[in-house]
Amino acid sequence: MSEDSFRIVDLIVKKRDGKELSEDEINHFVKCVTTKSVLDCQIGAMLMAIYLNGMTSVETVHLTKVMMTSGESLMWPTEWKGSVADKHSTGGVGDKVSLPLAPALAVCGVKVPMISGRSLGHTGGTLDKLESIRGFQVNLDSKRICEIVQKVGCCIVGQTDAMVPADKVLYSMRDVTATVSSMPLISSSIISKKACENPTALVLDVKCGKAAFATTEECARDLAQSLVGTCSGLGIKAVVLITAMDAPLGSAIGNSVEVAEAISCLNGEGPRDLKELVCKEGGHLLYTLKKAESVEDGAECIADALKSRKALYKFQEMLEVQGVLPQDAQKLCQPGADPFEVLPLAPRKTELFAKKSGIVKEIDALALAIVTNKLGAGRDEPEGSIDHGVGIVLCVRVGQFIKQSSKWATVYHNGNLNDSLKTSLEKAIKVEQNAGTEDLPIASRIIDVVHGKRQHPASVGQ
Amino acid sequence: MSEDSFRIVDLIVKKRDGKELSEDEINHFVKCVTTKSVLDCQIGAMLMAIYLNGMTSVETVHLTKVMMTSGESLMWPTEWKGSVADKHSTGGVGDKVSLPLAPALAVCGVKVPMISGRSLGHTGGTLDKLESIRGFQVNLDSKRICEIVQKVGCCIVGQTDAMVPADKVLYSMRDVTATVSSMPLISSSIISKKACENPTALVLDVKCGKAAFATTEECARDLAQSLVGTCSGLGIKAVVLITAMDAPLGSAIGNSVEVAEAISCLNGEGPRDLKELVCKEGGHLLYTLKKAESVEDGAECIADALKSRKALYKFQEMLEVQGVLPQDAQKLCQPGADPFEVLPLAPRKTELFAKKSGIVKEIDALALAIVTNKLGAGRDEPEGSIDHGVGIVLCVRVGQFIKQSSKWATVYHNGNLNDSLKTSLEKAIKVEQNAGTEDLPIASRIIDVVHGKRQHPASVGQ
Repeated sequence: MSEDSFRIVDLIVKKRDGKELSEDEINHFVKCVTTKSVLDCQIGAMLMAIYLNGMTSVETVHLTKVMMTSGESLMWPTEWKGSVADKHSTGGVGDKVSLPLAPALAVCGVKVPMISGRSLGHTGGTLDKLESIRGFQVNLDSKRICEIVQKVGCCIVGQTDAMVPADKVLYSMRDVTATVSSMPLISSSIISKKACENPTALVLDVKCGKAAFATTEECARDLAQSLVGTCSGLGIKAVVLITAMDAPLGSAIGNSVEVAEAISCLNGEGPRDLKELVCKEGGHLLYTLKKAESVEDGAECIADALKSRKALYKFQEMLEVQGVLPQDAQKLCQPGADPFEVLPLAPRKTELFAKKSGIVKEIDALALAIVTNKLGAGRDEPEGSIDHGVGIVLCVRVGQFIKQSSKWATVYHNGNLNDSLKTSLEKAIKVEQNAGTEDLPIASRIIDVVHGKRQHPASVGQ
Repeated sequence: MSEDSFRIVDLIVKKRDGKELSEDEINHFVKCVTTKSVLDCQIGAMLMAIYLNGMTSVETVHLTKVMMTSGESLMWPTEWKGSVADKHSTGGVGDKVSLPLAPALAVCGVKVPMISGRSLGHTGGTLDKLESIRGFQVNLDSKRICEIVQKVGCCIVGQTDAMVPADKVLYSMRDVTATVSSMPLISSSIISKKACENPTALVLDVKCGKAAFATTEECARDLAQSLVGTCSGLGIKAVVLITAMDAPLGSAIGNSVEVAEAISCLNGEGPRDLKELVCKEGGHLLYTLKKAESVEDGAECIADALKSRKALYKFQEMLEVQGVLPQDAQKLCQPGADPFEVLPLAPRKTELFAKKSGIVKEIDALALAIVTNKLGAGRDEPEGSIDHGVGIVLCVRVGQFIKQSSKWATVYHNGNLNDSLKTSLEKAIKVEQNAGTEDLPIASRIIDVVHGKRQHPASVGQ
């Protein structure tokens, strides 16, 4: 049947009745979405039918492919084949992994045209964090993106207007039609955007826990399978790390405070869990790209890039080509300098103190994220503005011993920190008095690793 | 929770997750639909969630009530309490019951402000049929409707613009979002429109068979239960007849040809199945209204109204007050006159002849309706125009003996009756050679009667 002869209502009937849509049918639907030749009420009905009846992995691949090809994609020199890669996280509190990882990967010979997103809901956005740095430009066209990756090896930018227009329409409607949390819709939205970069490999961090989209391991595993399956169908090598997201990653939550922590990581310092996760994600990617003998070797390469400060200077280079004044970039990346000479920081400071001594059993990432957003660090609506200087910095981490009346966090804010917010913060930490006095190790907790379909050994390296 | 604090997306979530919406929540949704303060994609998503997850009978009653009150309704003198009633059919081929029934009921003392619909899809529309009569006005405002019911006792009109605006929005979107065939949406749409008439009782004809929306008895029973349940919840007494719709009702299919057959019925003549169904529907309604001792007595009253031609003169009176010139109305209703002196009839005539002798086992109503519509008697789109003079008149009925080469139908058409349509017509009749030579009775087949919740005997008549 030719695509022109499909009627949208018949496609809705098919999905409504739980049947599998063909590639031509999915193509027709998405083309109509892109050209606005389908009624909004029909998009809403189709999204709900997909939400409730699901999609097979084959349908999800077709959906992702046609969404990806609905707009422009990035093209690379032939000699880069096997070297272009990127990472994606489903969104965690304090997750600033992209900032050190992109330049560290570039140092290791990977080309990283990282297209990132903005904050929405309780999780932060990489672009918002980077915009804490005055002058930093995230809106570049595809020609400029290619030039930067050619010159520097990495960039961190927003989607261009011409990329995945179908996702722009569907994503905005999913939000208002309560169809965001559908596996095939999540997978196609995430992967279509990344597939525009024409990458050889992707590492995906599926967050799992109280402060994540996937609150259960089962949900996280389903999402991981859906993501790697979709990548396989598009010919992209993918590995998913399922990582814990109950407590924040690292110590900083906000925008400028997270950039400062990322720079600390690029200095080979900063919180151990952050550094570990950067190295592990990078290690898996280098191994997948055959640029390392093993995941461990790959992680070692990333750790070296951080320790040697090579990644830091790569980051500095990236800042400069993306619009930051050289003197600002230099100040930020000078070892031992105070990043807040360049970065904004909210003028008021409230310190929080432990009510009793004991081991920190829990720091509620979701509660802290909600307060940080209420203070202005996030947005409730896509077009909302952000206060980059607002944030929370923790002095203790889960597993550490804390003494009564000692400081556990500093809140940077404008205006008042009202009693209700203060109470939320105080409730966010759980200290257990009789839990021994020994500090426990603070590590990033990787729950599982999910790989795409393994290639047959004979074909490896071909 | 105050209605203002509902967010549409939260209501969609609730229905998406199969939960029951409260009366306040349903009110809020429908009010937003009426005032256009909800996005079309949200309406589409909600309709699909209702289609797939259903609604409880309580939800359906709330939905119907708020749809009904979304616009104006008709108000009656206090002394009419217990006398206002109407009928509705889910749509059959050749179903012209409304035309004789409304005046017959009026003769029996019932007030019948019948609000009818137009043809869409393969079933005809009462308003289109009546518009075959030149001058007949269906678009009257509520004041005029009340005046006519006061004067004549009955009218057959279209919805006013101000009636059930919520249904107008939802109905147009159900069509394109593949959510037409949802029980709660069907029931609320049908009953909200009838409830605007403020009736004491309704008789509902749920058609069941190959040419009906409900193709199975199970589906018809579900719909019947949903309809009587919704009526009960609104305090309307209801009785549903589930009637067979495989072969056409009566002999005429079209517009003017059906009006002619209705007039024949009003003369106490015409096809037996039509007359029987008119009497049975009327009988049930008169009994429900306590205007007859039993259903049989009620049916007898209707039969008398037809036989005595009192209903015919009531019909003539109705035509005149609804805009038909008195001389036209008189000509139409004069016993023995040819109605086609007033009514249009397509100029070309094709007669169809039996290929063999035998008993007619089947006349495929759906096939005949599709051909009639292709000839111009119906419309595919709500705004399409209609050729009132086109139609088919059968010379035999299911159960009758037919001799080879004798005529079984006449088709009235403009332009060509092409070979493909002719083949469809020839395939629509099944004659069985060895099925005996005795005519079988031609009766309307009532599959079942479904009543609303019976009132306790003590409360009857109160």
